[in-house]
Amino acid sequence: MPNPTAAMLVIGDEILSGRTRDSNMYHLAGELTRVGIDLAEVRVVSDDADAITGAVRALSDGFDMVFTSGGIGPTHDDITAENVARAFGVPISVRDDARALLAAHYARSGTELNESRLRMARIPDGATLIDNPISAAPGFTLGNVHVMAGVPTIFEAMLASILPTLVGGAPLLSQSLQIFRGEGDIAGPLSELAARYPDLGIGCYPFQRDGAFGAQVVIRGQDGGRVDAAIAELNAMFPA
Amino acid sequence: MPNPTAAMLVIGDEILSGRTRDSNMYHLAGELTRVGIDLAEVRVVSDDADAITGAVRALSDGFDMVFTSGGIGPTHDDITAENVARAFGVPISVRDDARALLAAHYARSGTELNESRLRMARIPDGATLIDNPISAAPGFTLGNVHVMAGVPTIFEAMLASILPTLVGGAPLLSQSLQIFRGEGDIAGPLSELAARYPDLGIGCYPFQRDGAFGAQVVIRGQDGGRVDAAIAELNAMFPA
Repeated sequence: MPNPTAAMLVIGDEILSGRTRDSNMYHLAGELTRVGIDLAEVRVVSDDADAITGAVRALSDGFDMVFTSGGIGPTHDDITAENVARAFGVPISVRDDARALLAAHYARSGTELNESRLRMARIPDGATLIDNPISAAPGFTLGNVHVMAGVPTIFEAMLASILPTLVGGAPLLSQSLQIFRGEGDIAGPLSELAARYPDLGIGCYPFQRDGAFGAQVVIRGQDGGRVDAAIAELNAMFPA
Repeated sequence: MPNPTAAMLVIGDEILSGRTRDSNMYHLAGELTRVGIDLAEVRVVSDDADAITGAVRALSDGFDMVFTSGGIGPTHDDITAENVARAFGVPISVRDDARALLAAHYARSGTELNESRLRMARIPDGATLIDNPISAAPGFTLGNVHVMAGVPTIFEAMLASILPTLVGGAPLLSQSLQIFRGEGDIAGPLSELAARYPDLGIGCYPFQRDGAFGAQVVIRGQDGGRVDAAIAELNAMFPA
């Protein structure tokens, strides 16, 4: 049975302007691979209502599950929650359970739960909260879309709390071999190997190091025995 | 006049599996901002023919220009060129000028220009070559789509060679202020500031450092005087 598929939606002008270097995509990709969920597409869009709504609809329809990152803070440019609600055609308002989480958190530090902070308690109808152990303001799951914070520590904590609830497939196993030959010398034999192992993913990633050309060949699959067999054949073709 | 818009398409299983951390997106975002082109969307798709063709069509239709990264090497999983051709409905074949570039390059190192390497001379009908000063195999521009390599040094060199040919708008200027207050305290006044400066982009990026909460407020716009005025107002609201 094929693995479930996932997409990610990164929301934020700061990524698209080059101000911030995204790290949530890299983190999510590694975690999903580990639990056997195939990350099939990532989109990055700006803090724009139509861009967010359109991408949520397209990815929610196209993949088994969607993870979003960014745009759920207290400021005017945090517009993810209302646009996920809009994508699903459901109302959004401050919800008592989310408000209670924020009230308890800010009471501990003697901070006022003002109108801006209360924005973070707006949850679309029918959504389930995602725990935020760091700064209390929750994420949420609506349909097959998991809405999480953009700050990497919070994104990672939220993901850790929902990962055990997701049904994955067989984890993707991989082995790799470094070959100090030009990629053009490797390509022909590698293509024949790929044809003999259609169940495996075989990638070739060139590098240049100390003036020498080489490539890292990565073989991925769900059946460890098949991955072993393919890497052994590759080793025999290109002895170190 | 609004700036021209751009989208990026990153092609490669290695990004989606978490094996490789993308750096081309971050580089492109910074370079485009510098020359006044707005990067409005990024998509990352796998080495899959339909995914590539679909994304090229959608982004080429939706934005003024598109930059792709990855999938133009000599191996079986390098399928970007033929799928960009497919997206535009034009034939692709080995072209004499591209073949000559490769032949000269490999002759210098005494390397055989074999069938796999010759794959890198396949250019869609009507495309213009993009110079590759590092490893010769060219990228190409077809319609409004610029097709470039995934290896960061080569991607950056190819981008450097086409950037002067692109017509940008006014570069985006930005100033930022670090405010050591919770984002929830900043949000209200910031929202009012944003309403008074609808021509500027005002973003708020929270951080936590040495146990203290704060946020970096970034104000962006094409008119330096307006950016100065807004940052002065912000300074007055939140004196250091």
